[in-house]
Amino acid sequence: MSLLDAEIAAQPEALARMLDAEAGRAAELGSQLAGISGVLIAARGSSDNAARYAQYLLGVRAGLPVALATPSIQTLYGAEVAMDGLLVVGVSQSGQSPDIVAVLAQARAQGRPTVAVTNDAASPLAAEADWVLGLHVEERSVAATGTYVCSLGALALLAAGLRGDAGDLDVLRAVPEALAATLEASAGPAAEAAELLAGADRSVVVGRGYHYATAFEVALKVKELSGLVAEPMSAADFRHGPVAVVGEGFPVVLVAPSGRAHGDVADLVAPLAGRGARLVAISDVEALLGAVDVGLPVAGGLAEWASPLVAVAPGQLLAVALTRARGGDPDDPPGLAKVTRTT
Amino acid sequence: MSLLDAEIAAQPEALARMLDAEAGRAAELGSQLAGISGVLIAARGSSDNAARYAQYLLGVRAGLPVALATPSIQTLYGAEVAMDGLLVVGVSQSGQSPDIVAVLAQARAQGRPTVAVTNDAASPLAAEADWVLGLHVEERSVAATGTYVCSLGALALLAAGLRGDAGDLDVLRAVPEALAATLEASAGPAAEAAELLAGADRSVVVGRGYHYATAFEVALKVKELSGLVAEPMSAADFRHGPVAVVGEGFPVVLVAPSGRAHGDVADLVAPLAGRGARLVAISDVEALLGAVDVGLPVAGGLAEWASPLVAVAPGQLLAVALTRARGGDPDDPPGLAKVTRTT
Repeated sequence: MSLLDAEIAAQPEALARMLDAEAGRAAELGSQLAGISGVLIAARGSSDNAARYAQYLLGVRAGLPVALATPSIQTLYGAEVAMDGLLVVGVSQSGQSPDIVAVLAQARAQGRPTVAVTNDAASPLAAEADWVLGLHVEERSVAATGTYVCSLGALALLAAGLRGDAGDLDVLRAVPEALAATLEASAGPAAEAAELLAGADRSVVVGRGYHYATAFEVALKVKELSGLVAEPMSAADFRHGPVAVVGEGFPVVLVAPSGRAHGDVADLVAPLAGRGARLVAISDVEALLGAVDVGLPVAGGLAEWASPLVAVAPGQLLAVALTRARGGDPDDPPGLAKVTRTT
Repeated sequence: MSLLDAEIAAQPEALARMLDAEAGRAAELGSQLAGISGVLIAARGSSDNAARYAQYLLGVRAGLPVALATPSIQTLYGAEVAMDGLLVVGVSQSGQSPDIVAVLAQARAQGRPTVAVTNDAASPLAAEADWVLGLHVEERSVAATGTYVCSLGALALLAAGLRGDAGDLDVLRAVPEALAATLEASAGPAAEAAELLAGADRSVVVGRGYHYATAFEVALKVKELSGLVAEPMSAADFRHGPVAVVGEGFPVVLVAPSGRAHGDVADLVAPLAGRGARLVAISDVEALLGAVDVGLPVAGGLAEWASPLVAVAPGQLLAVALTRARGGDPDDPPGLAKVTRTT
């Protein structure tokens, strides 16, 4: 078993630990930030995918507009962005990236409230933050897995705090068990899906709504670890064009847990199957799992907004299995560094 | 000559026409919107790349935070996002996409100011807007070229209006001539670059800052028209990881006109050349053009913020030449529709 396998398996425990440790702080900071008019999130890589989740979560459930920061504005152009009314959040597992830190520093200089979501409470990012939501993950692999899931969890706690809804916390407390069940159920099918995809030279991962973020993160894991080109795409964009270039044997991974976005993604099965695509689906909906070449089952019963914390797991397993099927080492992917110091 | 060739050649004239027609309106709306605290932009596809340009332009030069809308929040989840203080802009050449229209409709219902950037003043998008900035482009090809450049121009006029700086308009009025000179100078090298890239099975297009948008748009044109996988990437992200997977013959297009972002992209030449990459550069900097396999020259003398209106043109020519080199028809790309009606 690789280090990465062990860290993927440890995610349910890490998430439970994070929720226990941070729920109180998130509720408190939420109550103090009631007057904000929007959120600016600075992040890169997997953390940027977590920010994408927060964009839907805070938009749909808290009615807040969310901007994803472009830190070059601060670092490359030395410009000042007026952040009146905004809560500014930095997401970085290492907390080291100077450009993410620069955005929080500018917010702080303007007297705006700042939150760091990070695995290192002693990091430069944490030092610029009024509040720190810790990730509580032991992660030595270069590929982010537990830190991604716990970043989603921390952002979900933040949203629950801003909503002032204790019921959200009950939903989140059920997630670690669902995550453990999903990892167990999807391990075998993930290996099967990896065999199906191993020989391809490109692939597409489709999602929508809350699971647009999941599609990005699964595609990133597949690319980073296995080297297979994997393009994340919204079902809306895919349908109106790129679907036409799918030919015999072209692999498509559909991320479609139950919820409002399910139908839009699941409706792609018929046209894609008609073109001879190789189809993999990540879902808790039996009808979809049975309609594709390989179904990666997700535990059911979760609210759609909480399901991204679980649905990424079969994608992580797929990326690892695919890496091995293509002759790579999940613990030594080419071209990845654990800490990036982007300026 | 294909229809697309003709439309690419007609861009300088279209841009000059648009600037003449819309400069007055943009100045007026800018003066009326002085109190806004941020901008929300709804767009898809090429228009989303134009929105990405506006994110840097409005951030760096007007100090405004810019959020790119995720219209599924309105259409799929039926949620209301509080847009207090925001100017809400929809960018769509057809003005037909229901999801972009839905974001403007919600803004209008909240009493927020709305702007449509569109080629059709009678479109549903225009109907939801307080102000319409027209594109004035005759475009029948399915691939957006002139509408992209004129969308950048319209957003630059909007930024100039919000800044209240008439000097910006003088800069923009010099762009059509620079665009014409660039098209003439880069046609030959674009054909040469296409030969270099034709046999590849994937490629990367790198930019940063203002030209992060250019990298996205060039990659989109290459993908849409030629079918070659082209991944847009920030120089910052590329350096900290993916650069390590570049091997002998791997094609990389560097978008690096002069300005603050130039050095960060140009610094990639040495490590990439050392790995045997095939390098194409879009730039006005002679040292860079001479250091790569094929240089696509851009007219010099433009301010960095205005150069995206020009630097995309060699990329358009490259995409068309590459399509022919790979046996395709630029006027009949698979999987593209002129009007998308995403809900």
